[in-house]
Amino acid sequence: MRGFGFELAKTDGAARLGRMRTAHGHIETPAFMPVATQGTVKSLTPSDLRAAGAQIVLANTYHLFLRPGHEVVRELGGLHRFMGWDGPILTDSGGFQVWSLSRLRKIGEHGVEFRSHVDGSRRLLSPETCIEIQHALGADIIHPLDECLAYPATEASTERSLDLTLRWLLRCLAAHRNGESGGALFGIVQGGADERLRRRAVEETCALGLDGYAIGGLAVGEPKPVMYALTELCAGLLPRDRPRYLMGVGKPHDLVESVARGVDLFDCVIPTRNARNGQAFTADGPLVITHGRFARDPAPLDAECGCEACRLFSRAYLRHLFMARELLAYRLLTIHNLTFYLSLMTDMRRAVAEGSFAPFRARFLGRYGVESVGDSNESPASSEA
Amino acid sequence: MRGFGFELAKTDGAARLGRMRTAHGHIETPAFMPVATQGTVKSLTPSDLRAAGAQIVLANTYHLFLRPGHEVVRELGGLHRFMGWDGPILTDSGGFQVWSLSRLRKIGEHGVEFRSHVDGSRRLLSPETCIEIQHALGADIIHPLDECLAYPATEASTERSLDLTLRWLLRCLAAHRNGESGGALFGIVQGGADERLRRRAVEETCALGLDGYAIGGLAVGEPKPVMYALTELCAGLLPRDRPRYLMGVGKPHDLVESVARGVDLFDCVIPTRNARNGQAFTADGPLVITHGRFARDPAPLDAECGCEACRLFSRAYLRHLFMARELLAYRLLTIHNLTFYLSLMTDMRRAVAEGSFAPFRARFLGRYGVESVGDSNESPASSEA
Repeated sequence: MRGFGFELAKTDGAARLGRMRTAHGHIETPAFMPVATQGTVKSLTPSDLRAAGAQIVLANTYHLFLRPGHEVVRELGGLHRFMGWDGPILTDSGGFQVWSLSRLRKIGEHGVEFRSHVDGSRRLLSPETCIEIQHALGADIIHPLDECLAYPATEASTERSLDLTLRWLLRCLAAHRNGESGGALFGIVQGGADERLRRRAVEETCALGLDGYAIGGLAVGEPKPVMYALTELCAGLLPRDRPRYLMGVGKPHDLVESVARGVDLFDCVIPTRNARNGQAFTADGPLVITHGRFARDPAPLDAECGCEACRLFSRAYLRHLFMARELLAYRLLTIHNLTFYLSLMTDMRRAVAEGSFAPFRARFLGRYGVESVGDSNESPASSEA
Repeated sequence: MRGFGFELAKTDGAARLGRMRTAHGHIETPAFMPVATQGTVKSLTPSDLRAAGAQIVLANTYHLFLRPGHEVVRELGGLHRFMGWDGPILTDSGGFQVWSLSRLRKIGEHGVEFRSHVDGSRRLLSPETCIEIQHALGADIIHPLDECLAYPATEASTERSLDLTLRWLLRCLAAHRNGESGGALFGIVQGGADERLRRRAVEETCALGLDGYAIGGLAVGEPKPVMYALTELCAGLLPRDRPRYLMGVGKPHDLVESVARGVDLFDCVIPTRNARNGQAFTADGPLVITHGRFARDPAPLDAECGCEACRLFSRAYLRHLFMARELLAYRLLTIHNLTFYLSLMTDMRRAVAEGSFAPFRARFLGRYGVESVGDSNESPASSEA
């Protein structure tokens, strides 16, 4: 909304090169957002994020609502100042976390009642409080409360859920217009795995003329071909002149496949969470640093990477840190994985700019050794608890 | 030994200003060594250490012997290269860790048999293997195997233990001379809390003309006045022209009190371990960041500190990170505490240089609010498990 803009610079097939403008700077798209669940990308400082190439981060409304509380963040000058990050911030609606993390959910017309996973207190997230929280945080891009459905779901329950999400959207839009935020409100396209309902969701959401559109309710357990097909369907229906954000996706090859289908924006905990489990991404596919074969390996994690972990340390040392459960291990692999993800986005932007996205995609997938395109999709969640 | 040297530049009362030379650079003394137990100062990179003002780090022979093994470290080019730290490294003998961490210790003339705390395997640390391990690591300053006694101990058992430590020292010295290390060998003065035995320990250890002298067996549970008295006694007897290292000490006021008694070199896990428990050191005394009164405090941890944690973040944010058990919390407080300790050493060096150490000491202790000078001494240990 105020202060927000998007320009499409170039397309190459369905892949798009663009630029989003926010009050805290612009974002070249396609872009990947590291996840700062509780107001910190786990183990990293803002300068680590800049060094890795981050342009924007995602923070979780649900987590910050529960701890430290949005009023505390507002009192301390907003989330940018609180977490020391002066670049753009996007917040999600909290709907996904209520669904995946909290107990005793009760969903009704008014909103969602749930118990906090932090202290067990009873909380209500309504469309209005959802917007109020995100305004208090001062995010540059915010999202309306939506209902996230498990996969699979019947057509009837998917339609009932979509109806509720669309009614909530109208209340969120009103609350946003009545508020004082300078941020942009994106719509979230739900509709489960039902093609007709996805079409309806795109149509009714876009009719509101929002600043951008998120594709929600994917990466929740559906097979990967279903995810790709629904992404392609939605992206193909969304307006050309607005950014398209695929929520909670994904692995490196998912990003490539989704950019190929017209997606501009991503977030996922996979690079950061998997780093803390010892998985490092490389152009030749992922490796698990705790593997015994690295015990005396003097090579860097990834010879092509210029991150701090790869410049300074051997696989043998990184493995030692992991085996010894040293805190530095988590930080170094997080730095590496985010550098890998963010460099991949840079490479994709360059490929689109040069009109060579199709060969880039084929080359990347071939080298990465993707046998997992048809894999059943795990649920990576879009917050780090 | 080869490549090692020490020059005393100035004294002010018993306090000393000096410089140690090693093959990996020099160290202005009095100096404090951050503890890199397993080849990493917990949560920090080498560049973090440099930024905090570290000149030299301590690594633990015991830990690196057990994991990843000194042969692995040697094969990967030595500890400096392994951990990416090109400054000086001091290693301890492992004697203290065998005493404090391992089970089923059996001490005999040949050395110490124990079970690894990592995998339960049976290991032997003899005077010769102790030196061999430290040579393999490539440390700049190494230590002989010694026996560490619990406090209190009888005179007879203290004397038996000292005799063993002195016999082991001769074997260590022979092993060191036969080895190919360019590092310096320090002697360790034991003798428990017995003044006569401490005198004997200093005399017989110094008779060997070693590169420097460590005061060991303190900070093991004795009352603080006893620790100060024994430090003063030993430092007063040690040769002027060799560095004096007080092992495993201590809190900020302990450093000031010990420099006042003629100590040049310190190591302790307190700044790093306490950081991970939420304790931050300031000139006005320590604070515990998880305290509720910091929940909305926009001030930095320490307004006088220029570290990354104090430059960028509020107490409220740091408290939030701690309450949420975020990894970044441990790193930021570690950076702050080490910056505080290392700045304190800089201040002390300046005070000695200016001949104003006595007023500096009075001012520091007054402001720090030390009521704990007479406290019973906890055992901080000199490794971080």
